[in-house]
Amino acid sequence: MSHYDVLCVGNAIVDILARCDDDFIVANDIKKGAMNLIDAERAELLYSRMGPATEASGGSAGNTAAGIASFGARAAYFGKVSSDHLGKIYTHDIRAQGVAFDTKPLAGEPPTARSMIFVTPDGERSMNTYLGACVELGPDDVEADKAAGAKVVYFEGYLWDPPRAKEAIRLAARFAHDAGNEVAMTLSDPFCVDRYRDEFLELMRSGTVDIVFANEAELKSLYQTSSLEAGLDAIRKDCRLAAVTRSEKGSIILSGGETVPVEAIEIAELVDTTGAGDLYAAGFLFGYTAGKDLAVCGRLGSLAAGLSIQQMGPRPRQNLLNEAEQAGLI
Amino acid sequence: MSHYDVLCVGNAIVDILARCDDDFIVANDIKKGAMNLIDAERAELLYSRMGPATEASGGSAGNTAAGIASFGARAAYFGKVSSDHLGKIYTHDIRAQGVAFDTKPLAGEPPTARSMIFVTPDGERSMNTYLGACVELGPDDVEADKAAGAKVVYFEGYLWDPPRAKEAIRLAARFAHDAGNEVAMTLSDPFCVDRYRDEFLELMRSGTVDIVFANEAELKSLYQTSSLEAGLDAIRKDCRLAAVTRSEKGSIILSGGETVPVEAIEIAELVDTTGAGDLYAAGFLFGYTAGKDLAVCGRLGSLAAGLSIQQMGPRPRQNLLNEAEQAGLI
Repeated sequence: MSHYDVLCVGNAIVDILARCDDDFIVANDIKKGAMNLIDAERAELLYSRMGPATEASGGSAGNTAAGIASFGARAAYFGKVSSDHLGKIYTHDIRAQGVAFDTKPLAGEPPTARSMIFVTPDGERSMNTYLGACVELGPDDVEADKAAGAKVVYFEGYLWDPPRAKEAIRLAARFAHDAGNEVAMTLSDPFCVDRYRDEFLELMRSGTVDIVFANEAELKSLYQTSSLEAGLDAIRKDCRLAAVTRSEKGSIILSGGETVPVEAIEIAELVDTTGAGDLYAAGFLFGYTAGKDLAVCGRLGSLAAGLSIQQMGPRPRQNLLNEAEQAGLI
Repeated sequence: MSHYDVLCVGNAIVDILARCDDDFIVANDIKKGAMNLIDAERAELLYSRMGPATEASGGSAGNTAAGIASFGARAAYFGKVSSDHLGKIYTHDIRAQGVAFDTKPLAGEPPTARSMIFVTPDGERSMNTYLGACVELGPDDVEADKAAGAKVVYFEGYLWDPPRAKEAIRLAARFAHDAGNEVAMTLSDPFCVDRYRDEFLELMRSGTVDIVFANEAELKSLYQTSSLEAGLDAIRKDCRLAAVTRSEKGSIILSGGETVPVEAIEIAELVDTTGAGDLYAAGFLFGYTAGKDLAVCGRLGSLAAGLSIQQMGPRPRQNLLNEAEQAGLI
């Protein structure tokens, strides 16, 4: 029996969120809608130009873990913070959500990672991430009992940016498969895919990864195609199960020869897309590890993502279990 | 000519906001709707019991300064942070809003103040404040040019909690009056009024304070009466100008024999009352220092307060100047 439904592994990042206009994005040479990696010096510069902000724990897989716990499922998390104030905030928030989080914090420098997230009037978020302590995540941080004791080990493609996290992932994947469990990943970002395309394809084709989450842009980047259909055909062959998200067009789930289209939920107002993909994965994996069929998994993903984009910040404030019950999905 | 419209003085506090149910408030012996002063030990305890939170710069007079700047007026602020990460966040946020803030940060302990704010389903906020570096604010922090160069010096009654801030206020008030300018205060909290009733009355009756902001509970506490009418009659005699806020019932402005009732704005959803009184004062003082008549000052206060309570956190994200223009108030 597994002790956890999902173990999530990712860069542990505190988000610093502010609104801005499109001119600001252009003037500051930020790739809109993407995750821009920045160093400490650029972090200082951008912060000096940023408007009044709010802070919230984020990090892609951390948001997914928080979402899974909000659905009432058992989630664990590996991620590296420093033992500074932001690290304490991060640790508090994820544990307070009910996620098992015991990765040893780094003593001293570099500080806990932060991402300055600029939200434009169209609701799109552009992230500027200083990885800080995340660069120290490595195989020593893989707790064997959690890696072997989760129905799914889920990680973010962003983990290929820090130097040694990929070793942690390969080790955790081995624990998972040896225990008869599954491994899932998100492609994270089209530019991240561009940096690590061959390695991501190898993870899928070697069977290191069983389940892949991607949005349309990431899928197209992975296969260097402008055709959604071509991307879908290709990923169907490269992994056992894939969920491709398409914003307001919903998502498409591919499993062998099966294709399951899923609608997005209706929203009142698009406020901030930060965390949308992470919450889709949370809903999907909650359903998947609870044994729901793929259509329900997709609808749970749509629900969580749709709630998250109607508010500022990466993690929805609602109790997702209550929301799923009210939506008649469980 | 004044260099600033309003100089605000207060406890510089980072808010840590989370939702909770009413049972939590009772079980943790928190005075609901009030500002509960706590020490470092209780701060640790409450944080360990708090749910996932978000952080935002707050502090009553700091929120007012941010609001005044958002209306496009010239605001300055005195408040003491430490030179730690929360202090840097506080400094960033208030400066990024356009407020002149140059109070020297404390080197080392105690850390920057934080308030754990629990928001119940009715939208009411219950604050638990660890004053930290605020206890070091004193007369040395009064910048003479700013105190003498603002049309109004505005401070929070909460400043009577730390030991030496009241000396700073008396000094700043002297600079203001010597320059022919005015002094305003908010009574802050009914329990704060209870702690410092005689001193607050002395400030008003001696003419140290010209303008008083109070909500209904604070007014009743000040005069130890259960009658709104009795409170209004009393405060009318004790200060030149008073604005008494009454939540959804709007506000009442008293100036000598004149009484100006003001309606609250209609809101779609009450989310979080944190900062409502602070933003009322911001709108009022923006109008007042721009020479608007009292009815318009009150409506500007209602507008800013009404916007702030429809979102989580203490400072509204909207550009208040645009909002005031759209509402036809300027």
